[in-house]
Amino acid sequence: MGARRWPVADRDETARRVLASAEVPDSGVTPSPEISGWLAERAAAGRFDVALIPFEAMRGWHFDPANGNLRHESGRFFSIEGLRVRRGDGPGRVWGQPIIVQPEVGLLGIVAREIHGVLHFLVQAKMEPGNINTLQISPTVQATRSNFTGVHRGRGIRFLDLFLEPGRARVLVDVLQSEQAEWFLAKRNRNMVVEIGPDEELETGEDFRWLTLGQIRALLTADNLVNMDARSVLACLPTAGGGQVAGDDFAAVLRRSFTDRSAPTLCSAAELGSWFTGVRALEELVQRLIPLDAVAAHGWEHGPDEIAHRSGHHFRVLAADITASNREVARWSQPLIQQRHPSLLALIVKRVDGVLHALVQARVDVGHLNVAELAPTVHCRPADHRAPEAAPAPPYLDVVLGASPAQFRYDTVQSEEGGRFYHARNRYAIVEVPESFDAASGTDEDTAGDYAWVTFGQLTELLAHGNYVNVELRTLIACAHALY
Amino acid sequence: MGARRWPVADRDETARRVLASAEVPDSGVTPSPEISGWLAERAAAGRFDVALIPFEAMRGWHFDPANGNLRHESGRFFSIEGLRVRRGDGPGRVWGQPIIVQPEVGLLGIVAREIHGVLHFLVQAKMEPGNINTLQISPTVQATRSNFTGVHRGRGIRFLDLFLEPGRARVLVDVLQSEQAEWFLAKRNRNMVVEIGPDEELETGEDFRWLTLGQIRALLTADNLVNMDARSVLACLPTAGGGQVAGDDFAAVLRRSFTDRSAPTLCSAAELGSWFTGVRALEELVQRLIPLDAVAAHGWEHGPDEIAHRSGHHFRVLAADITASNREVARWSQPLIQQRHPSLLALIVKRVDGVLHALVQARVDVGHLNVAELAPTVHCRPADHRAPEAAPAPPYLDVVLGASPAQFRYDTVQSEEGGRFYHARNRYAIVEVPESFDAASGTDEDTAGDYAWVTFGQLTELLAHGNYVNVELRTLIACAHALY
Repeated sequence: MGARRWPVADRDETARRVLASAEVPDSGVTPSPEISGWLAERAAAGRFDVALIPFEAMRGWHFDPANGNLRHESGRFFSIEGLRVRRGDGPGRVWGQPIIVQPEVGLLGIVAREIHGVLHFLVQAKMEPGNINTLQISPTVQATRSNFTGVHRGRGIRFLDLFLEPGRARVLVDVLQSEQAEWFLAKRNRNMVVEIGPDEELETGEDFRWLTLGQIRALLTADNLVNMDARSVLACLPTAGGGQVAGDDFAAVLRRSFTDRSAPTLCSAAELGSWFTGVRALEELVQRLIPLDAVAAHGWEHGPDEIAHRSGHHFRVLAADITASNREVARWSQPLIQQRHPSLLALIVKRVDGVLHALVQARVDVGHLNVAELAPTVHCRPADHRAPEAAPAPPYLDVVLGASPAQFRYDTVQSEEGGRFYHARNRYAIVEVPESFDAASGTDEDTAGDYAWVTFGQLTELLAHGNYVNVELRTLIACAHALY
Repeated sequence: MGARRWPVADRDETARRVLASAEVPDSGVTPSPEISGWLAERAAAGRFDVALIPFEAMRGWHFDPANGNLRHESGRFFSIEGLRVRRGDGPGRVWGQPIIVQPEVGLLGIVAREIHGVLHFLVQAKMEPGNINTLQISPTVQATRSNFTGVHRGRGIRFLDLFLEPGRARVLVDVLQSEQAEWFLAKRNRNMVVEIGPDEELETGEDFRWLTLGQIRALLTADNLVNMDARSVLACLPTAGGGQVAGDDFAAVLRRSFTDRSAPTLCSAAELGSWFTGVRALEELVQRLIPLDAVAAHGWEHGPDEIAHRSGHHFRVLAADITASNREVARWSQPLIQQRHPSLLALIVKRVDGVLHALVQARVDVGHLNVAELAPTVHCRPADHRAPEAAPAPPYLDVVLGASPAQFRYDTVQSEEGGRFYHARNRYAIVEVPESFDAASGTDEDTAGDYAWVTFGQLTELLAHGNYVNVELRTLIACAHALY
């Protein structure tokens, strides 16, 4: 920059400090036994009522007479429109559906601070209307652009200045990442971690707590506790360059995969780049916004209180009225998306020369900004493949469903963003297969070309750039931190 | 990959071989004195007539009655539609214009081969309808997806198999890059260099020649000789990691900037990443396709043989009829875009601790896939800023226009893609300023925040990823190879 505007930390230095924080299960700053009590107390302190209502009862939202799009009277926040997608030239490759259009870039930010020489992360107990359990652990700041430019007309957002004022804090992570490509058109959020000085005291109050990464790792083994936004940001923490690791148990081969840049990999960065470029170039994905009215031609039925696909699959668009005691705005209406069946997001991993490798998929999805992103090995709704006329099961689903309990290194239910999605809980799993497992077996040549074996360190390096790793795979990367 | 599908070269090894090829001004394989004769002979051998015609005389193209969009009867190739753009919230931030919509990813590929131990590149003498001089030096293969999936119903494309059949050749470069964001909506091409074995003879014929990078460097100092697609691919050649450089003359400080990864830089990669993420997050760019008919509201007038802005600025959409003796299809019509005034694309460079740094701009343009890309310091049409009611001149235009002849290290006219643009010639310049030059002087705080000093090696590292470096800056990076 002409004059350097703000300090940005060296990634390898951050990697070492992140891994050191992961080693601390309880620093005493926020004693671990007190965390559940804190969450229960915060849940009791805030009143938060969510009622599903007919569309016509929504305040501030209406269907535009010109095209049927569902939008806010201010023209801001987001809208629900129609999306038409064509993939390639064959018949049956055209699909239409409702989609969330939110072109503004939001901010997901975590404040970090060194306390007693260990990096701590400031998390928030935050309520969202779509959360099954109302309150989950969230980033320090979670804001849409509309929030912080004032259209919301809400109260100010705490700690936002630490992220927006250059030089106010030191940047550890700063990258745009995507959100669910099935429901959002090219949505991006700025994922940030910024560090304040060790002597800088913040007035945090009762909604916030300082936790080590070791504490967050433990929370990630529980269902529906660490929200999607926090998982997304944590996955972007650099780990490659964090040093060499001794040992050969699962924890060691996983940790080596995260940290040791000199460890052998099945694919080089250049090979991964060329493979992924090939997928993006040869898979054709043509997206076009259409009026929400026009998705009726693709099987979507618009009732008084839902827009749903007549097959009973996919998702529904609902309307909700929310009353909150502790939000910038005390009462509002908004649309929410409800998936009809839970997803299975499973990452197959195996040891290769003492380094854990993950089998990732180059996935094409309707809302992608740039055709494809890396996704978990299995990214589907199993229920969609059980019905008599169901689509064929995706590759490796049988491997995951047939795995023994011992192969499940991680198996937890996590929620998707409660600000847009209603009770969206999905199963996240990490499944270890023997080193002899051949990814190409049982799949045709074409399918095998869409998958690659990568280390966790390679994934965290790619996460320095946007739109390589989808939000579901970011969740699994964050969860994998719990396992070493 | 599950099984490795194709070999991909190590980037640092490629960098060393690329720089070695740049050192060879004439290998004797294609003697340099014979190049101009070869081009003249190829120009004489092919008949190529381009006539501007009324829109209604176009064959296969028509304005869609529903929305006025200009499209091909096959539904493929590309279309001319309307684009509405909003930047931020202020008044006067909404703009509409015609735009080329071509969602398919094309291929720009150069075949490389080691001859006498030196990397050579196979270039093509190729005619394009929009070229001022009909024929320019082009990549080995230049193909749209429609070309190679057969909608074109043309003859097969030579050497395409080297790029599309995995393992047929070794990959040196493989990345998606953008094209002109003023005229294309989110257009991407796959930029590739693949290497065949030193003993593999290709039947190249009269349209192709093997050149060293040293020879191509010399050709880049001439006007309108190396086409945009070739410049784009050449800019993606890795150079960082190519080794240390002695000396302190301009050539040495430039070469060090390209190659020496241990040389000091003003900004780290992490600092650049955070700065650029901030621009993409905080600049709001909302793009929406609209009917081409609807751009009339933004000052565009649709006549029988042009669509043009009533201000006399910007560009015109024209119709052309082309007759060619040496193309897959012998006669066709197509729209072409003609800019009204030439652009000035100038890169300000200065020495910092013996390493040349370039002042790049994080530019927001209407057709960008992801809000902003890095652009030359000055990227404008000077004529647009001369009229009485003209827009204010952009930062640093005065520095470039006021520079002495000795400061112009490079100053050449190059053409934009002749397959879409009619006689689009722009001035490309590299201007050296003293080390004491302060980029922030004479600009306000906001403006200075949109610029950063980077080395050429940092730029070629970013070019391993797509959508960081715009096509105009790629041209200047390719041209800078001519100067060390």
